[in-house]
Amino acid sequence: MQPYELSLAAAADAIRARRLSPVELVDSVLDRIAQVEPHLGAYAAVTAERAREAARAAEREAAAGRLRGPLHGIPMGLKDLIDVAGTATTASSRVRDGHRADADSTVAGRLAAAGAVLVGKTHTHEFAYGLITPQTRNAWDEGRIAGGSSGGSAVAVAAGAAGFALGTDTGGSIRVPAALNGVVGLKPTYGLVPRHGVTSLSWSLDHVGPLVRTVEDAALVLPVLAGHDPRDPASLTTGPTNHLAPRGTDLTGLRIGVPRNHYFDRVTTDVLVAVRRAVERLEALGARLVEVEIPMTRYLQATHWGLMVPEATAYHEQTLRTMPDRYTDDVRILLEAGELLGAGDYLRAQRARTLMRQAWARLFDEVDVIAAPTVPTVAAPTGDSTLTWPDGTVESVSDAYVRLSAPANITGAPALSLPVGQDRAGLPIGMQLIGRPLGEPDLLRVGHAYEQSVPARTLVAPVDGGRADLEPAATAPR
Amino acid sequence: MQPYELSLAAAADAIRARRLSPVELVDSVLDRIAQVEPHLGAYAAVTAERAREAARAAEREAAAGRLRGPLHGIPMGLKDLIDVAGTATTASSRVRDGHRADADSTVAGRLAAAGAVLVGKTHTHEFAYGLITPQTRNAWDEGRIAGGSSGGSAVAVAAGAAGFALGTDTGGSIRVPAALNGVVGLKPTYGLVPRHGVTSLSWSLDHVGPLVRTVEDAALVLPVLAGHDPRDPASLTTGPTNHLAPRGTDLTGLRIGVPRNHYFDRVTTDVLVAVRRAVERLEALGARLVEVEIPMTRYLQATHWGLMVPEATAYHEQTLRTMPDRYTDDVRILLEAGELLGAGDYLRAQRARTLMRQAWARLFDEVDVIAAPTVPTVAAPTGDSTLTWPDGTVESVSDAYVRLSAPANITGAPALSLPVGQDRAGLPIGMQLIGRPLGEPDLLRVGHAYEQSVPARTLVAPVDGGRADLEPAATAPR
Repeated sequence: MQPYELSLAAAADAIRARRLSPVELVDSVLDRIAQVEPHLGAYAAVTAERAREAARAAEREAAAGRLRGPLHGIPMGLKDLIDVAGTATTASSRVRDGHRADADSTVAGRLAAAGAVLVGKTHTHEFAYGLITPQTRNAWDEGRIAGGSSGGSAVAVAAGAAGFALGTDTGGSIRVPAALNGVVGLKPTYGLVPRHGVTSLSWSLDHVGPLVRTVEDAALVLPVLAGHDPRDPASLTTGPTNHLAPRGTDLTGLRIGVPRNHYFDRVTTDVLVAVRRAVERLEALGARLVEVEIPMTRYLQATHWGLMVPEATAYHEQTLRTMPDRYTDDVRILLEAGELLGAGDYLRAQRARTLMRQAWARLFDEVDVIAAPTVPTVAAPTGDSTLTWPDGTVESVSDAYVRLSAPANITGAPALSLPVGQDRAGLPIGMQLIGRPLGEPDLLRVGHAYEQSVPARTLVAPVDGGRADLEPAATAPR
Repeated sequence: MQPYELSLAAAADAIRARRLSPVELVDSVLDRIAQVEPHLGAYAAVTAERAREAARAAEREAAAGRLRGPLHGIPMGLKDLIDVAGTATTASSRVRDGHRADADSTVAGRLAAAGAVLVGKTHTHEFAYGLITPQTRNAWDEGRIAGGSSGGSAVAVAAGAAGFALGTDTGGSIRVPAALNGVVGLKPTYGLVPRHGVTSLSWSLDHVGPLVRTVEDAALVLPVLAGHDPRDPASLTTGPTNHLAPRGTDLTGLRIGVPRNHYFDRVTTDVLVAVRRAVERLEALGARLVEVEIPMTRYLQATHWGLMVPEATAYHEQTLRTMPDRYTDDVRILLEAGELLGAGDYLRAQRARTLMRQAWARLFDEVDVIAAPTVPTVAAPTGDSTLTWPDGTVESVSDAYVRLSAPANITGAPALSLPVGQDRAGLPIGMQLIGRPLGEPDLLRVGHAYEQSVPARTLVAPVDGGRADLEPAATAPR
């Protein structure tokens, strides 16, 4: 087994036990990047020299017995919306030509202080304004999309080209590519992880969070990211930053909500069966299943768009006037359309969000966690722009991918996506666990219990090799 | 002296001492209404029968030794935006033809429970969307405006046609008519007084508060109004509801901010001199004067309009379509214009408000209270739509009246207007005291100390008689 194949937790254990050095680990990941990048295109920039230097420094510290914590010497990718001092934050856009960040974002600074080693900046949809990542291919099938907008981060982690990565999530952009590439993605509670120094898409919906290979790994990264920073006006002053490490598989006493509406509508049979089977496994671990009704679902899309579109347009107001031709057409058209939205639309969206938050809060009086699919289907073939459902409904790929993930952006509730099998073609399927605000410990506990109770899966996609030895595909007929 | 001429505090003392009965007081006020209403037009509806019945009930309770508190048996007027079960809330608009409230607003219910006796509903600008009250004349000069939009309430209190009244304040609508009619008006901290059952103009700027004849009276009414009500989403769960009664005139240790910009710009000499003289009196009482710079003043008007216009339009969305011709032209045009405002305008206004709140919060690290004019000039002659300043600037009357009061609506800070003299024509001048959020005790303390330290003024406007014996007018040359 190569070092790049280890989970973050296993790599940290090995470094702590001096069975592995940061230099070996970083070199292994850089070699892996060189091998898979021509196939995947996950990185906007690879910072190999800087990484090797940081690895040597980490190694010297480790040799001197000074370990900064579990991220010490772990190679990471940062979505290219996240400022790192002295490097460009391209946001995958020509608008940022010549950009160079003066200072670290809060999260980049905290990760560096925790000993993590930057190996590169990962691709995003331009300014994160889309559910795909055009530059990047799916880690399990190069003919399929990576999903987005944190597609580069998800693919890098899935392929062993990073020990972990950060993404951002405004409508599902961490969870969607996590699900499509068979990794774990956590969108934390709104305000838990500061966004200072992270390019904004829509400030009232934006979240920063980790993409990792296991739920246990998420529990190692989150405490480093979380904690108040007054430079993000939405930053919470309190939060669950410690004691996240989940232990054991007993879920006795935990109430898991299973939606009777919305989350299992217009979902492929493979997704439906895989998620149902995972939920049954949680029940077998002691959790009590409670059927729940998701409130106000017919307002979800209008509310999400009504908040996101004008906030995105406001952020780009200047550059939309000074350099409109540097945007790709799809993003420029969306931003220009935002100028036509009325104040009434925006304030109605804000009021609807307030009512939705209240209604969801009541839901969490009855349950601790809601379990549902992350996305209604697996990764689409590159170039497909629509899906056709058995009832004849045609839905755009983007609308389908955002449909089940956007509610947690509107409400600000934490949501975790974890792999729960593959479809008949071997493509990953994700289950989404949604908790009450600051309910991350519940999500990590449930996710970890699930992971521990199923046969170990291959953590790293083979890339240009044969299919890995995966869990048996869900095969129940529709 | 007639009972209607008493301050609320003096009337309450007399009732408690059984020197005055609620029936005598209410009859005196109803007689006064009959006398002055033909001149003033303060009331949209006088509820004489209902008032006499409530007065008799209050009298029976008092005779049995059951006094509900200082408002027991006190006649009050409520601005006709405030629901009272079984009566119309006309909002001074034909849109409300045939209206009848099913239930009391929170404030009407609390006042009734405290023993106050409704004598009538007072006029407002249609739906409170204006700084005048067209139906109502100034209590001190029938050829001049009452100001608005709580003009009926201010004039009723000024003329002895109510023991106190409630108004609402979205840009100054309590404080402006208070200043122009020589009474005291308090706009409490945003969220302190619940607005359930009160017709909204702009929910993020709307406040409900008392109009009274003395600062001491304000301290008696506020505790009855304040306190959490979950039916108003902005209602605070905490607040200074007790121990407001101010005592003494010693202001030692109190820091009073005197703005070096904005509040004394484009203000008439009479207003300038009267307010400066009042501030010097506060200094003589022991307060320390601190010159302060008001932040972000050039964004005030755009922020206020950017919040108010779309919120007002959203409230009227339905009736604007179904019965546009029932609105007066000026209000309908404003509401229709609101439909043209972009989402970007509204969100920029929200962001500017956030920054303004933060900047004002820093101001209150340096001072406890800010003292300034309430309005830049006295009541304008009826029909005048503009003012011309000595520098040649022409300003609409409405813009002038809202200019100094709107900041406290944007920031949500409490603000008290109290009379500090008259101009050379005998028209009242108001001083505005602005505090930190929930700083009402400071405002009442300073206002009461001022009142106690100056010669007693005539509390009730003579109406159709000679000028009252007022404080000498400020006579310093410009």
